[in-house]
Amino acid sequence: MAAAGDEPPDLPPTPDFDSYPIEAAIGHVAAEDDGRVVRLTWSDGRESRYHAIWLRDNGSDPENLNLGTREQNTDITAIPPDIRAAEASVDSAGALVVRWTPGETVSRFHPGWLRVHDYSHGRRQDDAAGDKIVWDGASLPVPPTFDGAAILEDDTVLEDWLRAIAAYGIGLLRDVPAAPGMVARVAARIGPVRETNFGRLYDVQVRTGPGSNAYSAMALTPHTDLPTREYQPGLQFLHCVTNDAAGGAALMVDGLRLARHFETEEPAVYRALTEIPWPCSNRAEDTDYRWEGPVIRLDPAGRVAEVRVVPFIRAPLAVPFEQVDEAYGSLRAFFAAVNDPAFQMRFDYHPGDLVGMDNRRVLHGRAAYDPAAGERWLQGCYVEREELDSRLRILARRRREREVVVG
Amino acid sequence: MAAAGDEPPDLPPTPDFDSYPIEAAIGHVAAEDDGRVVRLTWSDGRESRYHAIWLRDNGSDPENLNLGTREQNTDITAIPPDIRAAEASVDSAGALVVRWTPGETVSRFHPGWLRVHDYSHGRRQDDAAGDKIVWDGASLPVPPTFDGAAILEDDTVLEDWLRAIAAYGIGLLRDVPAAPGMVARVAARIGPVRETNFGRLYDVQVRTGPGSNAYSAMALTPHTDLPTREYQPGLQFLHCVTNDAAGGAALMVDGLRLARHFETEEPAVYRALTEIPWPCSNRAEDTDYRWEGPVIRLDPAGRVAEVRVVPFIRAPLAVPFEQVDEAYGSLRAFFAAVNDPAFQMRFDYHPGDLVGMDNRRVLHGRAAYDPAAGERWLQGCYVEREELDSRLRILARRRREREVVVG
Repeated sequence: MAAAGDEPPDLPPTPDFDSYPIEAAIGHVAAEDDGRVVRLTWSDGRESRYHAIWLRDNGSDPENLNLGTREQNTDITAIPPDIRAAEASVDSAGALVVRWTPGETVSRFHPGWLRVHDYSHGRRQDDAAGDKIVWDGASLPVPPTFDGAAILEDDTVLEDWLRAIAAYGIGLLRDVPAAPGMVARVAARIGPVRETNFGRLYDVQVRTGPGSNAYSAMALTPHTDLPTREYQPGLQFLHCVTNDAAGGAALMVDGLRLARHFETEEPAVYRALTEIPWPCSNRAEDTDYRWEGPVIRLDPAGRVAEVRVVPFIRAPLAVPFEQVDEAYGSLRAFFAAVNDPAFQMRFDYHPGDLVGMDNRRVLHGRAAYDPAAGERWLQGCYVEREELDSRLRILARRRREREVVVG
Repeated sequence: MAAAGDEPPDLPPTPDFDSYPIEAAIGHVAAEDDGRVVRLTWSDGRESRYHAIWLRDNGSDPENLNLGTREQNTDITAIPPDIRAAEASVDSAGALVVRWTPGETVSRFHPGWLRVHDYSHGRRQDDAAGDKIVWDGASLPVPPTFDGAAILEDDTVLEDWLRAIAAYGIGLLRDVPAAPGMVARVAARIGPVRETNFGRLYDVQVRTGPGSNAYSAMALTPHTDLPTREYQPGLQFLHCVTNDAAGGAALMVDGLRLARHFETEEPAVYRALTEIPWPCSNRAEDTDYRWEGPVIRLDPAGRVAEVRVVPFIRAPLAVPFEQVDEAYGSLRAFFAAVNDPAFQMRFDYHPGDLVGMDNRRVLHGRAAYDPAAGERWLQGCYVEREELDSRLRILARRRREREVVVG
């Protein structure tokens, strides 16, 4: 594969800021179907077909695309409905050149970009997040752990840690400076913090007049945070500033593992968990958030989209009378599994530990602790999943750019 | 209807902070199905049935519920699976009293709360947002407009304005002090601002090296903001700080009206708009957000959940080859409607105008303007839909509390 540095200098810009190594050159070009389709034959024999409207829509000429913002200038309604390729060829730089009719405009396309965006052979895989690895207490007894001492500067550690969160739904940094506010600075390495009614940062510690069970020393059954929102926070970060208390171990459970368990072992329970909506409400004095959804929400393709469940902020169930027994039976089975040590990862928080987790996949809880023995103080904040994906794409882009310069 | 102030003083607490006027008293009480169901007959003749497990789960005795946080103490797995009502009666305060078996615990229930949460007669309607009113340029030529001069203090104006946003997807405040930062203070009356890569606040004005087409003087076809996110911002607020430019009128289109148009007039286009996923990407130098979804997303019940479309940050379509013509045909039809003045609301921004809109329902755009004539400066921020719903519930609760005190 040729590196982007080998590209002829006069290739057209791509419609984004990424680089597209040219893994094959465009050989033969032909207009088909009266110019409504352009067919390319690549130097390695592959054939790709693109609709004229698709090409015209994605052209990166300055008339079509603002090259400062990489946002389109052209409204789709301004492109003639009967747009066709009057002529298609390869120029000396290796770019595809198409002259359009009606009109006399010309578009040029970067061959590496065209190859990657070929849709005539099924979808390409977005490489942002990679594959998810499902785990339980036996297969992953502690989180993937990284040295966080230099997390504010070191992009390699950042990327390794974020890839662990993407794959396992959890990743731990050790030795992050145990200073208040540090969790926000680490989160800012990824993207903006999602502020909630609990603030931009929240302090998990024993309080008088707590606004949440979390602000006590009691045990917390593993759960997701803020199920009272349509979009539960995508990522949660918890940073241990102080821990001199006895007890309070972190308990983590992979929601994907629970889903797999019920799908294979108890399909009727699984169906109930994926279909019956449980309402949640926060019932505070100045806020009253409500949302409802199944404990395990599937996407239209039947894959697990998210888990949504908190034992202590459920609101009254409101399903048809006949469904109530099934609803409670399935919830009981779910929490029996959540409480089963076989599914749980368990670890202690040491000052400087900073755990990141996918709040819509991994349930987090804690053992009870004894605050008489000493202070326990975790600082937390939320960031959205999209920030993780975006940051991973950018970190990968920077790596590719470095490889091009080095190679 | 008796006001809550008339309640006997020793009614049990409700599981939330709301008040529940007692519109009927509990008359007869009976345990059915070996105690698995409790049946109430109310003083107005209505019959309600509750499962024992549902009652036991929702009990507000201090053992079951933390009365400081109104969060449950009891894990569902701690309740015996065969929980039954050994005895059920009405006490002198009018509360339902149930003695449970196994065990010897007792729960008491507030009759007003029980009545509202009766699920044996179908679902009660959440009154937070009220009904949505669908509009076009003829039926709603300008937004519902309110005097915003006292919006930081006046809860009545706040509630009226928010109810307009809930019903119409848009509401305008006039004469909000035209000071920078004011939009964030108004937003804080509702809930936390959602920060994005554009910041907590963003300034819509002409910039050198713009990071978005919005930061230019060009016309913007009506669109939703940040379709590159799984959860597009629920609400957008735009506050006009300065406007001496010529042109730049606001253009608003009700996405519910467009959906209704296509559903009734062009069902094949409607199907394509609700099914074919369009990718969006932001293609910036330091962020690379991507998401895809249909232009009109339906919820499982077939109702419009949201609109998601921006002409200028679409990414390359990646559907099966055979679907490309249909995809582009439906997108073209959609934008032809968006650009049709019959669907558009159009108004000019005056300094002090602050428009709030449901970003997942109402498409917003603008006419081109001439910055040579003078400065045009809008400040904007995002807040989630849940904050609107929560704030409306709290404002209504405060009204009820005032009514109780007055009455």
